[in-house]
Amino acid sequence: MSDSPPRLAGRRVLIVGANGGVGASSAKACALAGATVVLLGRRVAALERLYDDIERAGAPQPAIYPLNLEGATPADFDELALRLNDELGGVDHIVHAATRLHGLTPIELTEAEEWLRTWQVNIHAPYFLWRALLPLLRRSDAPSIVALVDCAERQIAAYWGAYGIAQSALRALIAMAASEWQSDGVRLIGVEPPPLATALRRKVYVSESQDDLLSPQVVAQALVAILARGAEIPSGAILGPELSAWK
Amino acid sequence: MSDSPPRLAGRRVLIVGANGGVGASSAKACALAGATVVLLGRRVAALERLYDDIERAGAPQPAIYPLNLEGATPADFDELALRLNDELGGVDHIVHAATRLHGLTPIELTEAEEWLRTWQVNIHAPYFLWRALLPLLRRSDAPSIVALVDCAERQIAAYWGAYGIAQSALRALIAMAASEWQSDGVRLIGVEPPPLATALRRKVYVSESQDDLLSPQVVAQALVAILARGAEIPSGAILGPELSAWK
Repeated sequence: MSDSPPRLAGRRVLIVGANGGVGASSAKACALAGATVVLLGRRVAALERLYDDIERAGAPQPAIYPLNLEGATPADFDELALRLNDELGGVDHIVHAATRLHGLTPIELTEAEEWLRTWQVNIHAPYFLWRALLPLLRRSDAPSIVALVDCAERQIAAYWGAYGIAQSALRALIAMAASEWQSDGVRLIGVEPPPLATALRRKVYVSESQDDLLSPQVVAQALVAILARGAEIPSGAILGPELSAWK
Repeated sequence: MSDSPPRLAGRRVLIVGANGGVGASSAKACALAGATVVLLGRRVAALERLYDDIERAGAPQPAIYPLNLEGATPADFDELALRLNDELGGVDHIVHAATRLHGLTPIELTEAEEWLRTWQVNIHAPYFLWRALLPLLRRSDAPSIVALVDCAERQIAAYWGAYGIAQSALRALIAMAASEWQSDGVRLIGVEPPPLATALRRKVYVSESQDDLLSPQVVAQALVAILARGAEIPSGAILGPELSAWK
């Protein structure tokens, strides 16, 4: 860690999807920037490794919150809000990096259960989670929700299925929440990274070499900068792949 | 009925949401244009009145299919496909006019059950219904699915809630299905009418006089023309409020 004051010192950041490539990198980057991070994800062993990694790096002590978004109900998110309030006194930022992508399939052949699960994880979970945490976010100095979104063209491209369609809905949710929560000072920002070397991408681009792709760590650094800059970014903005951070 | 040959003679048209303003008008217009219409909706008494109205007008005998999309499962849509096959030998067109709009509400205050119901009616039902009927549509000469969509700006405007967000997803579903089903000759067309004098609109514009608004019958006439023109309209197109039919 550098000698300059950590950019996210004292901030409490909930990482939703801390098991994924971008989620794990972001958790570590936020922690190294001085934030107390809460690692929300479904694979406890992986969360524990990430926890140890963050502790070893000398960052503020993180917390683990095991939750599977596939089965989570509004009551589970209310419980999360209670726990964040009791144990950290609130929350300042949500980094929403959880998504479900089964792989490319014609919509005619998608299993009904897979269709519904994708909507659960990709739309209902962010909606119910963000909403449950809204009273805590309102009490923060500079609250924000930063959500990862995928390339706009894929939302309507053949075979991207419920994942693609739900991405289009996620952008609409970001825009709507941004306009409804603006008066509370709660900012919504979408981040659409360029192609990344992640397990998510490998589900679709199976035989692609990931050697030339950006690392999720680059996105994690950009997220730290976005959280730190706070109010400079218009709420509802989608920061696209042209962002200088990726260069 | 005029002396010119009816434009939809011999066509079998499933009207989804035949209880609504646009659905009922479209059912009657398609029947008067010579089509055999199947009236799918949840309010049986209203469907029976519409049935009588169509019979009295001397149009081909319609059929009633009571179904509440709120609780419909993929198995219900498979059953619908079986019945259409057994009783009409198939289906040529779907006019999808069903939608659920609770009214304007902040997303923070929407009941969880209302949020999920809106998604069920506005996204899952069209997806599972269209998909179940795909094998029948493939056997038609000029199959098409024409879906009513709402104004694009509302999809992200404050307080339009799950209805607004699901509209954005519906457009993505239309685009995706259009590209995936193009090789089967199954065409998807979205229709975005101008403001209409309907009960749906009154839920939001409560105190508005509807005297100067277009009647749903104008949309019904446009839908007949769209079904009759068939292959001239590019699949995946959204015919917007600038359509000359509304003038």
